[in-house]
Amino acid sequence: MHRYRFFFILQLVCSLALGARVELPWSPLPEKPPTPKDNPSTREKISLGKQLFFDPRISLDGTISCNSCHNVMGNGTDNKPTSAGVDAKHGGRSAPTVWNSAFHSVQFWDGRAASLEDQAKGPMTNPVEMAMKDHAMVMDRISRIPGYVAQFKKVFNGENSTTIENTAKAIAAYERTLITRNSPFDRYMRGNKKAISAQAEKGMKTVIELGCITCHRGQNFNGTDLKMGEGFYQKFPLLPDEVYTPKYRFMDDKGRAETTKKEEDEHFWRVPTWRNVALTAPYFHNGSVATLEEAVRIMAKVQLGKEVTEEQVSDIVSFLNTLVGEFPEQTLPRLPETPGKTFFPLNAGNI
Amino acid sequence: MHRYRFFFILQLVCSLALGARVELPWSPLPEKPPTPKDNPSTREKISLGKQLFFDPRISLDGTISCNSCHNVMGNGTDNKPTSAGVDAKHGGRSAPTVWNSAFHSVQFWDGRAASLEDQAKGPMTNPVEMAMKDHAMVMDRISRIPGYVAQFKKVFNGENSTTIENTAKAIAAYERTLITRNSPFDRYMRGNKKAISAQAEKGMKTVIELGCITCHRGQNFNGTDLKMGEGFYQKFPLLPDEVYTPKYRFMDDKGRAETTKKEEDEHFWRVPTWRNVALTAPYFHNGSVATLEEAVRIMAKVQLGKEVTEEQVSDIVSFLNTLVGEFPEQTLPRLPETPGKTFFPLNAGNI
Repeated sequence: MHRYRFFFILQLVCSLALGARVELPWSPLPEKPPTPKDNPSTREKISLGKQLFFDPRISLDGTISCNSCHNVMGNGTDNKPTSAGVDAKHGGRSAPTVWNSAFHSVQFWDGRAASLEDQAKGPMTNPVEMAMKDHAMVMDRISRIPGYVAQFKKVFNGENSTTIENTAKAIAAYERTLITRNSPFDRYMRGNKKAISAQAEKGMKTVIELGCITCHRGQNFNGTDLKMGEGFYQKFPLLPDEVYTPKYRFMDDKGRAETTKKEEDEHFWRVPTWRNVALTAPYFHNGSVATLEEAVRIMAKVQLGKEVTEEQVSDIVSFLNTLVGEFPEQTLPRLPETPGKTFFPLNAGNI
Repeated sequence: MHRYRFFFILQLVCSLALGARVELPWSPLPEKPPTPKDNPSTREKISLGKQLFFDPRISLDGTISCNSCHNVMGNGTDNKPTSAGVDAKHGGRSAPTVWNSAFHSVQFWDGRAASLEDQAKGPMTNPVEMAMKDHAMVMDRISRIPGYVAQFKKVFNGENSTTIENTAKAIAAYERTLITRNSPFDRYMRGNKKAISAQAEKGMKTVIELGCITCHRGQNFNGTDLKMGEGFYQKFPLLPDEVYTPKYRFMDDKGRAETTKKEEDEHFWRVPTWRNVALTAPYFHNGSVATLEEAVRIMAKVQLGKEVTEEQVSDIVSFLNTLVGEFPEQTLPRLPETPGKTFFPLNAGNI
């Protein structure tokens, strides 16, 4: 596999040096995102999922919605190192963007969820995120909102359809609509050579030559396009150094091993996308790095063992900027009401 | 004034009893909300204001936007007794709905702001809300977002236009679009007598007969329609009782006197609107009352000195339900980005 990649990169670099027409290791996003057979998207399901995504009532004290940390009005994150959950608690990892998350074959930084459906259930009961006691509590809340119950019945076709599985399915269906197509580089890949600047094109060649594309390839710039549930992982830092690694505390979190408890998974992470990466500072799993320039320097050093020049950094950032796509216009959801009575019990502290 | 009101109500009640065609003490919302001369609404200003309204970056730790407590995806409140601000701090008063707030002639529960423009500046620097140190800090944040600076320049026509006054103007311009027209009762008032049920019509007559309309009159059911900056206030509880008043701690907060420091303002409050009141539980300034039924019983008792029957309560609630208007569809704003670098300083705690 590694040998294959080496030759692939060598071939690309030679072709580029010769000015030949080469096949790039990336591609524009396909027409439709991967979708599980048991969760086909429908207009009504997407609408329900969008309401749930924006509804803070499914957090313990009614303050946190999915959108609080994955703000789709912005870049799909909260632009913070780590996010504030209920009672302003913070976890150890930075919120990844929800935009184009449909094109990740596994979810979370450590890939511990096989699908968007699996992922959606996690934060609801995470004590430092939405902090619900359990999924039964989530469903109790949703079941007390008549407008939701009616929609579940219609969308999932049945009486006992107001379930956590269907809640996750609806949210995932909405998330599959969050796709930023038609970035300047997508237009470039489709033949419009003027869609990116000369500097960005130089940066593109640089990331190929440096070998970044060993991992950052494919339609989502996050690895070989695997089927849903199969993760594309890489160790980070692969070559821990004496400057960046301690400075940014990259080794404090054991990554995938924290979940699998396997030694061979220590410091392995799902390869993140480059799409919209220019917008999602601060960087890395702990959100410890403030700028994209520094992130580029770090990646070259601790993943590829290379020192990059400031010119290279600038070229690469120029290229990464071309991966910001178009954010589709959406309507604001309307959250169903509970007329005439309080939704949250009074005199129960902040719950 | 009081004598006038008494005769007005008497006349209405007699007319109703005789089945005569009477002029109701309310009216549908006018075509345009009151707008200050120095802040005309424009499409671009409203768009800028909407972005600012939804942007949590103007709170200390980047977690709270105007929309956090005045959720326009719902009924314009957070449906909580009191709202959670930065670091999950709580104030003593319940968030009033932002929907139709343009039709209040003064803002806040105690009317201490003369306009939506004045109001918008308050929560930003309130330590238990958005908790910014001062307005200079707010403007520093906004000024670091190039997409905002460009819009301010365009909307407010000048170089030094990124100011707190203009920020408030833009937010107020957006808030003036948050109007729920065409409620069943508005349609009834415009002549469609089938727009509300017989029970609701009975409830309508009941609120007239009981005298609720001494205060809850006008286009916004919140008093005589005064010009902007002139408040329509009433004492609450006007006739403190021995049951509700201590149970719901209505006297703990001195209302308008907390701001004016005048004895004659003790326990005076701006008269709240009835529009969408069915959606904005829990009720009263401290959000202490869970249901609309109980709110009706309390108002009859502590404002009018009357015990209402459960039938009357039910009729009145039926009437109040007809005051839920249509929530206009809106697009989701897109918040301008700060590419390539973190917006919040790292290693600065939660700031």
